[in-house]
Amino acid sequence: MEETYLQSVRYDGETLYILDQTKLPQLTEFLELTDIEEVWDAIKQLKVRGAPAIGIAAAYGLVLGIKEAPEKDFESFYEFFKKQSDYLAASRPTAVNLFWALKRMDTRAKQESSKPVTEIKMLLAEEAHLIRQEDENVCSSIGENALTLFKDGMTVLTHCNAGGIATARYGTALAPFYLAKERGMDIKVYADETRPLLQGARLTAWELMQAGIDVTLITDSMAAMVMQKGMVQAVIVGCDRVAANGDVANKIGTYGVALLAKAHNIPFYVAAPLSTIDLETETGEGIPIEERAAEEITAGFGKSTAPEGVKVFNPAFDVTPHHLITAIITEKGIMHGNYIEELPRLFEN
Amino acid sequence: MEETYLQSVRYDGETLYILDQTKLPQLTEFLELTDIEEVWDAIKQLKVRGAPAIGIAAAYGLVLGIKEAPEKDFESFYEFFKKQSDYLAASRPTAVNLFWALKRMDTRAKQESSKPVTEIKMLLAEEAHLIRQEDENVCSSIGENALTLFKDGMTVLTHCNAGGIATARYGTALAPFYLAKERGMDIKVYADETRPLLQGARLTAWELMQAGIDVTLITDSMAAMVMQKGMVQAVIVGCDRVAANGDVANKIGTYGVALLAKAHNIPFYVAAPLSTIDLETETGEGIPIEERAAEEITAGFGKSTAPEGVKVFNPAFDVTPHHLITAIITEKGIMHGNYIEELPRLFEN
Repeated sequence: MEETYLQSVRYDGETLYILDQTKLPQLTEFLELTDIEEVWDAIKQLKVRGAPAIGIAAAYGLVLGIKEAPEKDFESFYEFFKKQSDYLAASRPTAVNLFWALKRMDTRAKQESSKPVTEIKMLLAEEAHLIRQEDENVCSSIGENALTLFKDGMTVLTHCNAGGIATARYGTALAPFYLAKERGMDIKVYADETRPLLQGARLTAWELMQAGIDVTLITDSMAAMVMQKGMVQAVIVGCDRVAANGDVANKIGTYGVALLAKAHNIPFYVAAPLSTIDLETETGEGIPIEERAAEEITAGFGKSTAPEGVKVFNPAFDVTPHHLITAIITEKGIMHGNYIEELPRLFEN
Repeated sequence: MEETYLQSVRYDGETLYILDQTKLPQLTEFLELTDIEEVWDAIKQLKVRGAPAIGIAAAYGLVLGIKEAPEKDFESFYEFFKKQSDYLAASRPTAVNLFWALKRMDTRAKQESSKPVTEIKMLLAEEAHLIRQEDENVCSSIGENALTLFKDGMTVLTHCNAGGIATARYGTALAPFYLAKERGMDIKVYADETRPLLQGARLTAWELMQAGIDVTLITDSMAAMVMQKGMVQAVIVGCDRVAANGDVANKIGTYGVALLAKAHNIPFYVAAPLSTIDLETETGEGIPIEERAAEEITAGFGKSTAPEGVKVFNPAFDVTPHHLITAIITEKGIMHGNYIEELPRLFEN
């Protein structure tokens, strides 16, 4: 059952194959995991990264973890199940999708409690597949919607990695590029390297190359010149959180790219699954911005590149105000700027 | 004769002390050079960098090189002198200031040809000192002029390294910070790290820290957020070339910073010695932009950080159009936006 595309998390009923993202871009290595402890390690050590991919890995990890669960009655099965689920939850306590996926597996287990345990085990494997499939569908729909905004022959800039390897397939911001490729459309990509952690260089450039998509790597400081020279006609990025007014928190540097796009009259698009839209947060000012360790900047390449003891400011995200965002692309359609009215409608029936 | 500031090129009559910039920021090491071959090596191996600093090092290198020159008549002296000068000129054939400094030494030698050779040797050492002193004066004047634009308590962003170690002293864009420090003014600096070669992290942050100036290092992608949060009130950068209309070529990323400054209503200043103003070039479009090796982006720090064989676009400079430049600061005064009329006046008597 070999897939023709590169799948970062795949389960064949016995083995969980996980792309080891810590080895990228030098090595394309898949871990072959057959017990829950190995999945715990893979999540803990960031070998699998990206919120959706972590959730999917956790669901499959739990499927592996309950193989040996007692089958005589639901109570003894569920006790075992819960222990395994709590164990996995502790692998990366800040990963929201990890808990979300485990919670969903828990709900399904309880729903099916009247069935024989052997069947429940099969249904939980099915639930993990569903989680994976739904994520693929979300990404695919975002890609479809985004693609209506792009034309054959266009070149598009992206920042950071909102890609296929962080999700079940396709990614969010990168989804239209995969779909365009499947349809023989010619869409080229410029990838910002995305300092400090270089997700653009290490991951975006890598996964697009794997798929045979034409990608050119630049430093973040080159985006302005690329726009000035007319080398890109649109920008698309992913996001970590969208506030109710359409302000978007995303990887540091996104706000700058949005300003540069505005200055060059280039549309700036944000790909946002509904799971990232947070109507409880009124504006971007309500989104907390994590500051990270100085070493990411001073010694990010395995070698000290800044003076010992230098003061550093290292915010992980920035907030792009809604007025710079041409459209927010979700799996349920495209929002065109009147976000405060458009976003709540996405959650109506 | 120990100086209280850090001088990247210093000659005490016997030894030429050169700050080994290839060791920065990890090690502050001065080479102690006593013959012309050692100076040739230091220039060749980029241990001394920055156009003015290279010129100064070459002039002193020539002084070392003619110590053993025959003294019986000018002709035999000059033959020796010319051989040494040609030797030094070959150390870095693309460095304009190298030829400029050697040419100036040559002119002085010929001017003094009627004097005894022992005296000519002293006068050539004086000429090298003059070259150094004039560069210091230019930088100091630029700093004085720039400082009239800054206020006590301000924080200023800079990009790349137009600093003291690239010149005799003070640098160009960094000159106002040194002068402010000397006068007890409180001016803080944010330094963009300046990918791909990290001159901001390795050199600017380092030399400002050495001088006790408050500097904070950020990645290039953080400049927009720093402006958004009101953390800087002005930007100052150096330049490689100014066209007749005021368009400025400078390190890649400068144009983006200028656009970001404009979007935040922050003044954007360029420090430009007259030697960088090229009235023969009408606009920025006439300035050729060097593209450099992909490895600077894909493996800049001793470790591959991008996929093997990835396409890369790596321009070394960009052009900031004159309308984004609030003022161009020269040693002869500040130009305020009507560059096409103001710049030629700098070259009138």
